[in-house]
Amino acid sequence: MKIETKLAKFTKPLYLESGRLLEPWQIKYETYGELNENKDNVILITHALSGSHHAAGKYEGDRKPGWWDGLIGDGKAIDTKKYFVICTNVIGSCFGSTGPMSEIYPGSNERYRLKFPVITIKDMVKAQKILLDFLGIKKLKAVIGGSMGGMQALRLGIDFPGFAKYIIPIATTYQTRAYVIAINKAMIETIRADKDFKNGNYEVGAYLKGLAAARMIGYLNYISPSTFDKKFGREYVKTDGMFELFGRFQVESYLEYNGAMFPKWFDALSYIYLLKAISLFDVGRGFNSLEEAFSQIKDKMFLISFSGDTLFFPEEMRNIKKYMDKVGGRCQYYEIDSDYGHDSFLVEIDKFSNLISDILEGELDDRF
Amino acid sequence: MKIETKLAKFTKPLYLESGRLLEPWQIKYETYGELNENKDNVILITHALSGSHHAAGKYEGDRKPGWWDGLIGDGKAIDTKKYFVICTNVIGSCFGSTGPMSEIYPGSNERYRLKFPVITIKDMVKAQKILLDFLGIKKLKAVIGGSMGGMQALRLGIDFPGFAKYIIPIATTYQTRAYVIAINKAMIETIRADKDFKNGNYEVGAYLKGLAAARMIGYLNYISPSTFDKKFGREYVKTDGMFELFGRFQVESYLEYNGAMFPKWFDALSYIYLLKAISLFDVGRGFNSLEEAFSQIKDKMFLISFSGDTLFFPEEMRNIKKYMDKVGGRCQYYEIDSDYGHDSFLVEIDKFSNLISDILEGELDDRF
Repeated sequence: MKIETKLAKFTKPLYLESGRLLEPWQIKYETYGELNENKDNVILITHALSGSHHAAGKYEGDRKPGWWDGLIGDGKAIDTKKYFVICTNVIGSCFGSTGPMSEIYPGSNERYRLKFPVITIKDMVKAQKILLDFLGIKKLKAVIGGSMGGMQALRLGIDFPGFAKYIIPIATTYQTRAYVIAINKAMIETIRADKDFKNGNYEVGAYLKGLAAARMIGYLNYISPSTFDKKFGREYVKTDGMFELFGRFQVESYLEYNGAMFPKWFDALSYIYLLKAISLFDVGRGFNSLEEAFSQIKDKMFLISFSGDTLFFPEEMRNIKKYMDKVGGRCQYYEIDSDYGHDSFLVEIDKFSNLISDILEGELDDRF
Repeated sequence: MKIETKLAKFTKPLYLESGRLLEPWQIKYETYGELNENKDNVILITHALSGSHHAAGKYEGDRKPGWWDGLIGDGKAIDTKKYFVICTNVIGSCFGSTGPMSEIYPGSNERYRLKFPVITIKDMVKAQKILLDFLGIKKLKAVIGGSMGGMQALRLGIDFPGFAKYIIPIATTYQTRAYVIAINKAMIETIRADKDFKNGNYEVGAYLKGLAAARMIGYLNYISPSTFDKKFGREYVKTDGMFELFGRFQVESYLEYNGAMFPKWFDALSYIYLLKAISLFDVGRGFNSLEEAFSQIKDKMFLISFSGDTLFFPEEMRNIKKYMDKVGGRCQYYEIDSDYGHDSFLVEIDKFSNLISDILEGELDDRF
């Protein structure tokens, strides 16, 4: 499978939901497979909080493939022999698209930092749509994403009705609830409590312990309490003393490792801006009611949730289904039986890849 | 109701589970009600992570009463007209009992800090028992506590069989599971990430932002996700801008406030040591099996859990009941229907105060 990593630069301003704008701005993206002549085999993949445009395949020398490689590739559920798959790095992120550590003007040597405008999920989708327009893509076969990616899929269905044939939001919500806003807040304040963060003026490349600790907080809800039990139990690190203050249970070592790695590959301000985008997410904003928001969706929607998701609960996606039914939309709801937790959408691909390929093949169309 | 706050000083060493010792050491405690002639009306109250010996009543000029004032007092469920109630500040804490910020030797001007030994729940209970011996108390009517206090109640039943008539652990567990160890770890690392913590050598009275952020993490599990919804929804702080990066939802303002207050009244090292004690808690340590541990308990045990507790799940307390049944112990399990969350044991006293008074009056004795 061929991976093409590209950068699109735009000089026309990107007007944001806040009323502010980005000018110029750019978006990094990757494609897999070939665009057909009719340009009607395009699938947009939307990534989660710490994700990137690198959804599938391996770069030369890489040990690990892209984050949804189990789902995307030749002969896989999202079959790159059939489909032209695009995944973009969202604006606000730190993998090549315009974000808080970008220069305010090219060559200005001044980075946005806290001057960067607040970005919303709506803005991310708008930027992606401009890219697709630029590529001459008039129609999507599908938009598919999990977690923050699912928010984008939902938003695309609302903001650009008729643009995608299938909308597939996974492990997500329609309105970020107070509990998740609280988790996000704890992460943001943990970063801000780090003196080296310097209120956003940290040195480029500085290692921020506060960001490592914030990542550990995130990990508390990526797997379920019962998965914590299964993976770690009360195993203690063999070389650590039980009565050493900083001696570690295996689960602590796991958090410590993943936390410690994070500042090496993710930017603190991008993390804060994306958390803010997630907290602000509410499909009802800009409409008189949630019903009005959901009634915008003209495409076929397939909701996929996981029974053991303790971050975005299945109950929340069942509510989307209720709203869609209420407004007479076309919506199917699938709840995958799993106690793994929120990360199921990344880890338990075997449990829903057939469902994805069935949707894409049109085999569930007669169920509406 | 009369409050007596006292300090007991011991010169004989306190031998700890780690093999280390404290010498000298002291314990702060409070009593309510009067000890009767037979000294058989004593109830020991054991406190949670951020609790103290001040369980009931108001000090002169105080706005807020002790942390379990709804339960303890004249004519209340734990009736101070009948019972002599004792609550001690656990060793390791920061309200007057020996802890990491105590002087190594009185007058030495050197504080323990990271030289303080790791304390376990077993050690806390041992210290309390020594105090009770010193006070000439040979028998408890009951030991009652929630969360970390429930761990102490359970431990007392195991380590001093026959000492208490009734063991009443509330909203707790018998073995801290990986999920909770992970939460504790995230809090500990958030404190350590604060440069002002200086690896435990922070200045006395220094305000530690890392401790404030750690407290916010704790708050994520004190109430349930649905209580977050009910209390806060998606209300935004009226004076904050929706698209200001640090503009706040009400739930963020709530976390910020409670987080910011915490370093003013709690010590960072005590917090770390008590979190470590909770993570290490396992009634099976020192026994060949959990069955063997539970078979030590000779007293009547009443377990109280809350259906919506998302920190120590009811499932965990049902397991205690199973073990007690297996070893032929006397144990009753009560699950209070509530979706409030873990803090129910502090907040929803109306839901279980009758149960407590019934237990103390012996009215449930015939159910064994």
